[in-house]
Amino acid sequence: MSDQTGHTEQTGQSGQTDHFDLAIIGTGSGNSLVTPDFEGKRVAVIEGGTFGGTCLNVGCIPTKMFVYAAEVAASARDAARFGVDATVHGVRWADVRNRIFQRIDPIAEGGKRYRIEGPGTTAFLGHARFTGDRRLTVELADGGERTLTADQVVIAAGAHPVVPDVVRESGVPFHTSDTIMRIDDLPEHLVIVGGGYIGVEMAHVFASFGVRVSVVARGPLLVRHLDEEIAARFTALAREQWDVRTGTTVTALERTGEGVRLHLEDETGSSVLEGDLLLVATGREPNTADLGVEAGGIRLHDDGRVAVDEVGRTSAPGVWALGDVSSPHQLKHVANAEARAIAHNLVHPDDLHPLPTEPVPAGIFSHPQIATVGLTEEECVERGLAHVSFVQSYGDTAYGWAMEDTTSVCKLIADPATGLLLGAHLMGPHATTLIQPLIQAMSFGQTVRDVARGQYWIHPALAEVVENALLGLAV
Amino acid sequence: MSDQTGHTEQTGQSGQTDHFDLAIIGTGSGNSLVTPDFEGKRVAVIEGGTFGGTCLNVGCIPTKMFVYAAEVAASARDAARFGVDATVHGVRWADVRNRIFQRIDPIAEGGKRYRIEGPGTTAFLGHARFTGDRRLTVELADGGERTLTADQVVIAAGAHPVVPDVVRESGVPFHTSDTIMRIDDLPEHLVIVGGGYIGVEMAHVFASFGVRVSVVARGPLLVRHLDEEIAARFTALAREQWDVRTGTTVTALERTGEGVRLHLEDETGSSVLEGDLLLVATGREPNTADLGVEAGGIRLHDDGRVAVDEVGRTSAPGVWALGDVSSPHQLKHVANAEARAIAHNLVHPDDLHPLPTEPVPAGIFSHPQIATVGLTEEECVERGLAHVSFVQSYGDTAYGWAMEDTTSVCKLIADPATGLLLGAHLMGPHATTLIQPLIQAMSFGQTVRDVARGQYWIHPALAEVVENALLGLAV
Repeated sequence: MSDQTGHTEQTGQSGQTDHFDLAIIGTGSGNSLVTPDFEGKRVAVIEGGTFGGTCLNVGCIPTKMFVYAAEVAASARDAARFGVDATVHGVRWADVRNRIFQRIDPIAEGGKRYRIEGPGTTAFLGHARFTGDRRLTVELADGGERTLTADQVVIAAGAHPVVPDVVRESGVPFHTSDTIMRIDDLPEHLVIVGGGYIGVEMAHVFASFGVRVSVVARGPLLVRHLDEEIAARFTALAREQWDVRTGTTVTALERTGEGVRLHLEDETGSSVLEGDLLLVATGREPNTADLGVEAGGIRLHDDGRVAVDEVGRTSAPGVWALGDVSSPHQLKHVANAEARAIAHNLVHPDDLHPLPTEPVPAGIFSHPQIATVGLTEEECVERGLAHVSFVQSYGDTAYGWAMEDTTSVCKLIADPATGLLLGAHLMGPHATTLIQPLIQAMSFGQTVRDVARGQYWIHPALAEVVENALLGLAV
Repeated sequence: MSDQTGHTEQTGQSGQTDHFDLAIIGTGSGNSLVTPDFEGKRVAVIEGGTFGGTCLNVGCIPTKMFVYAAEVAASARDAARFGVDATVHGVRWADVRNRIFQRIDPIAEGGKRYRIEGPGTTAFLGHARFTGDRRLTVELADGGERTLTADQVVIAAGAHPVVPDVVRESGVPFHTSDTIMRIDDLPEHLVIVGGGYIGVEMAHVFASFGVRVSVVARGPLLVRHLDEEIAARFTALAREQWDVRTGTTVTALERTGEGVRLHLEDETGSSVLEGDLLLVATGREPNTADLGVEAGGIRLHDDGRVAVDEVGRTSAPGVWALGDVSSPHQLKHVANAEARAIAHNLVHPDDLHPLPTEPVPAGIFSHPQIATVGLTEEECVERGLAHVSFVQSYGDTAYGWAMEDTTSVCKLIADPATGLLLGAHLMGPHATTLIQPLIQAMSFGQTVRDVARGQYWIHPALAEVVENALLGLAV
């Protein structure tokens, strides 16, 4: 069953090497590896940060709780054009924040307690580093260190925000996605450096809450890894909502009495931007810099990710990796799927499951919302793929009409020879839900024609946008 | 390629029999039968009401435009629990109504003009009645009558609201869905007789606009044709929003100074309900009572629907029927699909396409929203089908959390032997969009397990409700 006594024996003692059947570094998706298959075995769970990982504590979950409140505020502000006279008097930031973290923090705390006191696991609270083959030394948060070995090790250590040198070296106070959601008061003017998904989600939240928002991005477009047509449309809409400065580099920063001053440079010259709070959202990198990968015999990709094979094995025998520390997709649904495969593989060495390779969708919960799966049109061109594309406006369907929508689109790309979808890119309300039938079509090899006409689409539900996009493709 | 001269010749003249290749009775889904296949042929289009039919003029389209404005108002009223302080000062009814009908009415008018003046068709404005085999006499709206014959006739005459005798004979003023959306001013207290989908959609609209709403229903539950668990949950939520009187019969009505007084009877005895406006929403019946079906040799079902075979043929050779006049489903997406099949069949007598029989989904855009496809649990029991069911709460998924949802559900029913879905019933925000992957699974024979795990579901999109419901089924 469990080493219910073992765990106390292991905690807080130093200088002793203990051996486990399984050691897991990180309690995000890694936490789900403690399956019934390990009943009666010894499992070490190592967490140097907050139990539950990025998604629960500083990622998907809290951001979407803020985003939903932002949607409510934005909808109320926009009510007049539907004939509804409404006034938003204000947003109680502290109430929003407390409601969210008073739900989340107890879950993280409960997860930690369960791994410390519960059956079957030994918790190590501290930073883990490989010091040999399947040997880890944990620098305990409350002092001292512990060394442990394990038959198998899973690296599920996640990633962390990148802070550019120019910011870090300037000494100005700044936030990242790790801290911005817990501030005490709404700023008057938030400056966001970075035009990726975190930047534009946070811009949406704070702007909807009445904050003036500036977004500074190096590239010519926001969310520029997306299909260019979508990125261009999004950027145009962003400019109507926020002070957006694309093609702009931050050359210096300094602290001011009230906040921060950024010195910027774009093709027209240099300028200055002042705000009272700074959010750095310039990407995330895997937590491998201080992982002792050389000692552990673990090969990294050039971008710092742990290299894994198709079943999740690293270059070190008995060592696996999953999630943001190794995946090219920093996405919770990918980490979870990889965890399911590896949970199986840990105990079925003769029947290894591949990490999932279905088309990987992603969502950006900004305003507008974006969802994407498969290839962009630029990727189709680069690869020399024959393709057709079609852009369906929400506003040309019944429910889009009802929403008085004039900007939202569903762009589809298909292979005219096979009739199969190559990519789908939606921008507008509920994009992350609307895209699911398209993910399903791509995952199961269903043709555009079959998906459009082989099933009913409820009239006049918003899903008709997708139906009409499929019908618009000339395949 | 059209009889550009023919149409003028046919309009407004009386006492003459004209012959057509095709005659279409009704311009809802029937309007789409004028395909390029009929270029150079003679097509008669007959409309006794408003061009465009129920969906465009008094059904799906305007109701959902009102519903969306209602959602905006309801969301703003409910904003405080998300930390957003908002006040709804009022709803400008006339502005809402005008915005909607100023979009719709020109479309209906343009459609009519196109059929009158445009190429390829001859429009007859008036009520059509069979007076022989493929022979129709049209009582023209502007006086006189015309008789025409056709090689093929399609009956797409739709349906109309049923008004119970007790209401009609009382002489009190009342509205149906045909008229309620065009009233001049919001009432203070709207009484709705009927607890079906029209009743609960209109209850949602008017209640969200600040009107006091009473709903009187004969059955023990509202929307009682649905899965009983969904109907019961819906009825409970309806009682929190509206004055709901189930198990109640209207025994008499009388006009009052300000409106109408209803005498009601339920198992506890009799009572009186007064309101200043009455909406009768007790169902719709096919427009066959005055269609001359005997003269046309057209068999009806006992419920008044035109009987058709699997390819849409009536009992009269050369006469077809589609949509609400013949279908057991009074749904626009069904009528459209039938129209596509019949458009093909009219010109391919040796390659007849069956009317579609995929699982037929339906949506109710009330508060909460409902979507349903396949069998209810009661139908599974009646048919003696082995089945398992699972109810997933929105609130137990990440986005449902963000929405602070405590009442919404996705109920799935599956065959444990095959792993195939038998039915899906959703109640909550965006139900009509969320259900699409389940319709897709049922239409293409995909198993619960495959649909759940053979594709990615974006975390933390609301579609995870569906993913988790699938995973919750013990198949």
